[in-house]
Amino acid sequence: MQSFELLSQKFILYFDKRHFPSEPSTLYEPNEYFLKLGGKRIRPVLCLMGNELFEEIKEDAWHVGTAIELFHNFTLIHDDIMDKAPLRRGMETVHTKYGENTALLAGDVMLVSSYEELNKISIEYLPSILRLFSKTAKEVCEGQQMDMDFERMEQVSFEAYLKMIELKTSVALAASLQIGAILGGAGERNQHLLYEFGKKLGIAFQVQDDYLDAYGDPQKFGKQVGGDILANKKTFLLLHALETASPSQQKEIRNLLSGNPADKIEKVLQIFHDCKVDEWALQLKNKYLDEAFGHLEDIAVLSIRKEPLKALAHFLIKREH
Amino acid sequence: MQSFELLSQKFILYFDKRHFPSEPSTLYEPNEYFLKLGGKRIRPVLCLMGNELFEEIKEDAWHVGTAIELFHNFTLIHDDIMDKAPLRRGMETVHTKYGENTALLAGDVMLVSSYEELNKISIEYLPSILRLFSKTAKEVCEGQQMDMDFERMEQVSFEAYLKMIELKTSVALAASLQIGAILGGAGERNQHLLYEFGKKLGIAFQVQDDYLDAYGDPQKFGKQVGGDILANKKTFLLLHALETASPSQQKEIRNLLSGNPADKIEKVLQIFHDCKVDEWALQLKNKYLDEAFGHLEDIAVLSIRKEPLKALAHFLIKREH
Repeated sequence: MQSFELLSQKFILYFDKRHFPSEPSTLYEPNEYFLKLGGKRIRPVLCLMGNELFEEIKEDAWHVGTAIELFHNFTLIHDDIMDKAPLRRGMETVHTKYGENTALLAGDVMLVSSYEELNKISIEYLPSILRLFSKTAKEVCEGQQMDMDFERMEQVSFEAYLKMIELKTSVALAASLQIGAILGGAGERNQHLLYEFGKKLGIAFQVQDDYLDAYGDPQKFGKQVGGDILANKKTFLLLHALETASPSQQKEIRNLLSGNPADKIEKVLQIFHDCKVDEWALQLKNKYLDEAFGHLEDIAVLSIRKEPLKALAHFLIKREH
Repeated sequence: MQSFELLSQKFILYFDKRHFPSEPSTLYEPNEYFLKLGGKRIRPVLCLMGNELFEEIKEDAWHVGTAIELFHNFTLIHDDIMDKAPLRRGMETVHTKYGENTALLAGDVMLVSSYEELNKISIEYLPSILRLFSKTAKEVCEGQQMDMDFERMEQVSFEAYLKMIELKTSVALAASLQIGAILGGAGERNQHLLYEFGKKLGIAFQVQDDYLDAYGDPQKFGKQVGGDILANKKTFLLLHALETASPSQQKEIRNLLSGNPADKIEKVLQIFHDCKVDEWALQLKNKYLDEAFGHLEDIAVLSIRKEPLKALAHFLIKREH
C-alpha cells in the first residue's frame, strides 16, 4: 500500500499531459490553462486509495481518477462564474481571462470529457461506476444550488446546512473512494462503509474549515481570520450561534450581519465565545471524525491495509480538544 | 415502418413526464419548465427512425432518444445564456426567468441527466453509444465556440463556416440516426452511410434556412426577411457574396455591415441578386440533398424501409429550382 503523498505524486505526473484536442484553440486552450493551475488532486487519489484498500491498483482506476478530476475542474470553472471569482490559486479564473461565454462552454466540454474518459474502463465496471458517477454529479449540482439559495435566506437550519455540505463537498469524496472500492472488487457492504467514511470525513473537514476561519492561527491558516464572518457566510458556527444564543444575542448577531461595523468580527467572535461555539464545533468535528473511523474500522480487510487512509484522515483533520 | 409524424407524436407522449426530482425545486423546476416548452423532438425521432430502418424499434431507443433530447435541451439553455436571448418559443428563457446562475446549473444537471438516461440501455450497446454520444457532444460545443468566434471575425472562409455548421447542427442529427442504426443491428458500413445522410441533410437544411432568411415568403417563413442581414450574421449567402462579388461590391457590403442604414437589407439583397447568390444557394442545397439521398440509396436494406426517411427529407427540405 502506498501513502497519500506517494499516490498524489504519481497521479500528478500521470495527469500532467494535454487532455484536449488543439482545435478549436479558443475552446480548448482555456481548459488546458485551467488544468495547469494544479491542485492536490485529492479526489482521484482517494479513488486510487479506495482501490488499493482491497487489491492492487487497476489500470481502470487511473482512467476513473482522470474522469473524477476533470469533473471536479468542470465544477470549479462553473462555480467561479457563479461566484464572480476573479482568482483561483492566485491566477485568473477562466471567465476572467477568456470571458464568461467561453468559460461556460469550456466547463461544458470538460464535463463531457470526463464521461469520455470514464468510457475507457472495462465494460464489467462501466454501468455501476457510470451510475454512481452521475448520481454524485447531480448531487454536487444540487449542493451548489442550495448554497446559492442559502445566501439569500435569513434563516438556515443546521440540518439544511449539513445536507448542503454533504451534497456540495462530501459525496464527491465518498464516491471517489467507493468507485475505487468497486474496482478493487469490494463487496457491497465494504463499499458502503467506505462511502460513509468519506462522507463523514468530508463533513468533519468542513467543520474544521469553518472553525479555522474563526479560531485559526492566521500564520498557519494563511487566510484572514473572520473572513466568513465579514462575508456573512453561513457556517456551522454561525448557525449554531443563531440557534443557541439568547434572544438579545441573536438580535445583536443579526444587526452585526446586516451592516459592516469596524468591530464586526470581534463582536461576533465574542458571541461565539459566550455561546461556547468553539467547544461545540470541536465536539462536532470529533463526532464526525469518530464516525468516519468507526466505518473504516468495520470494513472487512486487514487493519494494516487501512493505515494510509487513517494517516490521510489524521493529516487532513488534526484533533484538537 | 412508421412516418416521422407518427413517431414524433409517440415520442412527444413518451417524453411528457417529470424528468427530475422535486427537490431542490430551485434547481429542478427551471428544467421542468424548459422541457414543457415543447418542440418537435426531431433528434430522438431520428434515433427511432434510424433503428426502424433496420429492425423493430427497441426499448433502448426510447431511452437513448430521451438522452438525446435532454442533451439538446442542455445546449439550448446554455446557448440562450451565451446569446442573451430573452425568449424561446415565445416564452421566457431559463436565465431570464430564473437568473443566469440557476440557468447555468440547470443546464449542467440536464447534461448529467442525459448520461444517466443513457446508462439505462443494454450493456451490449453501452460503450459504443456512449462513445458516439460524447464525441458528438464535444463537437456540438466546438461548433458553438466557432460560431461565437466568427461573430468577432471580419472574414470567414466558406470551408470554415461549413465546418462550424457541421459541428453545431449536422453531427447531432447524424449521430441520432447512427445510434438508432446501432440499436437496429446495422453493420458499420450502413451505420456510416446513415450518419453521412444525416450530416448532408443537416447542411442542406442550414443552407435552406440561410436562403429563406433572404428570399423566403415572410407569410410562410414566420420571421422577418433579412433578419440575418440586419444582425450581420455570417450565412452561406453572405460568405459567398463576399467571395464572389467585385471589389467595389465587397467594399459596399462591408460598409453596409459596419453601419445600420435604413436600406441595409434592400441593398445587401441587391448585391446578392447581382452575384446570383440565390441560384448558387439553391444549387448548393440541392448538391447536399443529392449527396444525402445518394448515401441513403447505398444503404443495404429494402428500398421500402427507406421511405419514411425520404419523406422526412423532402418535408424538411423542399426542392426549389
